[in-house]
Amino acid sequence: MSTYWQRLNARTDARGNLCVGIDPHPPLLKAWGVADDPSGLERFARRIVEVLGERVAVFKPQSAFFERHGSAGIAVLERVLRDIEAVGALSILDVKRGDIGSTMGAYADAYLVDGAPLAADAITVSPYLGFGSLQPAFDAAHRFGRGVYVLARTSNPEGHLVQLALGEDHEGSVAQEIIDAASSANAASRQAAIGLVVGGTHNDLGCDVSGFNASILVPGIGFQGGRIEDLPALFGDAVDVVLPAVSRDVIGAGPDAAALHDRVDRLLAAAVQTP
Amino acid sequence: MSTYWQRLNARTDARGNLCVGIDPHPPLLKAWGVADDPSGLERFARRIVEVLGERVAVFKPQSAFFERHGSAGIAVLERVLRDIEAVGALSILDVKRGDIGSTMGAYADAYLVDGAPLAADAITVSPYLGFGSLQPAFDAAHRFGRGVYVLARTSNPEGHLVQLALGEDHEGSVAQEIIDAASSANAASRQAAIGLVVGGTHNDLGCDVSGFNASILVPGIGFQGGRIEDLPALFGDAVDVVLPAVSRDVIGAGPDAAALHDRVDRLLAAAVQTP
Repeated sequence: MSTYWQRLNARTDARGNLCVGIDPHPPLLKAWGVADDPSGLERFARRIVEVLGERVAVFKPQSAFFERHGSAGIAVLERVLRDIEAVGALSILDVKRGDIGSTMGAYADAYLVDGAPLAADAITVSPYLGFGSLQPAFDAAHRFGRGVYVLARTSNPEGHLVQLALGEDHEGSVAQEIIDAASSANAASRQAAIGLVVGGTHNDLGCDVSGFNASILVPGIGFQGGRIEDLPALFGDAVDVVLPAVSRDVIGAGPDAAALHDRVDRLLAAAVQTP
Repeated sequence: MSTYWQRLNARTDARGNLCVGIDPHPPLLKAWGVADDPSGLERFARRIVEVLGERVAVFKPQSAFFERHGSAGIAVLERVLRDIEAVGALSILDVKRGDIGSTMGAYADAYLVDGAPLAADAITVSPYLGFGSLQPAFDAAHRFGRGVYVLARTSNPEGHLVQLALGEDHEGSVAQEIIDAASSANAASRQAAIGLVVGGTHNDLGCDVSGFNASILVPGIGFQGGRIEDLPALFGDAVDVVLPAVSRDVIGAGPDAAALHDRVDRLLAAAVQTP
């Protein structure tokens, strides 16, 4: 069995270090000239994979925009995940799930187990119920060679109220405790299956990710104001494990294939040019 | 338009103060003699509403157990939500969603907007990205007379690491900041649409919910160790707005109708007998 970390590195070595977000916002559907319904959603999302699927290492479908359309939207998401697999790219399904015990186990069953209709290479999870509550997802990721990205320090301006609160031992922030717990779990498993989500919009992260031992997914690039060129300064030596995620700045150029490729080429060039 | 708070109080006044969780755990499906597939899921979940739908005020389907079965499971969830509406009960869909900006808006579209395939009377949300990040859900709830329950202090043993961390102003915990922010938002809207999730398993909540001005959903009763009889001591004067949620201790008795009714009767009697 290959681990998520091994597959991720193989894909980004071959295709460049970029994750393209598949976020079927209603205004984007409109700009593409497709309806805000399951058929429009399907044309939009599968077209992105059709055009960029052999060029881009990783795709990140945003579940919320599929859930808007109920079970018909989720059926589209199933097909998008299979498309991504078929073209040799990886999927990070952005679901930000978080629960406890057997309920967290059910989310792991839904997204991280071989043969599940919505199985993805990795998912995002949210640790408001405590890092330890996510253990069923970590267990499934380790068992099935998949990945889990834990929200640590998000890109939005409201995040600091929870994430930079001071942990009970008064030695560091909530975000730092999560970073350190993920790092320890990866050291124990030797799989590097537990990544982080850290926004790329901050001038100062407010937490220390140096030496982090798995993938760091960095949304907030482009529309939200983060820039690929700024990632080395922001992440220091951890920039080597950063996976920048760009959504509207790529998919806003569609459905034209040349325009979509042009956006990806520019972003990959920006990443390569950084020292 | 009736508000969620008005509908909730009308239902609990008429039927008693109890929320029955619909959690189709695989071991429960097995105990019921139904398959762990979408057809078994459908028999299980819809049977609970069929038997108890006119007796119980509120049902809380747990989304994770439907997501396990992909789009076919979500199609069952759509039918369960419509069943709950048809029998005059309320639905709190336990999804614990939390995201930012237009993505949070998409979750609001999915669950809190009239006509959405998965529209529920209320949902649960998770505030790791900050209370303010949930505003699109609050806006939809206010506009459509629905409710939002924000995780504050959860029932599991790992929750304190985030929830009892000390906020940046060093005046209270993360959970307390969320409780206070919800209270202020309810005072401003005059709708009491923003409830809390506070676990019933603690000896000491570690936060102050006295005077809270909307519904407090209290899971953790029964299987996890909380007792309805203990809620007055735990919640003080806020016990008047507590909605106890019980899952396995009710639905574990099914599919026999008399056994399901007996469990509900006992729980409602326990709630009434408290001073």
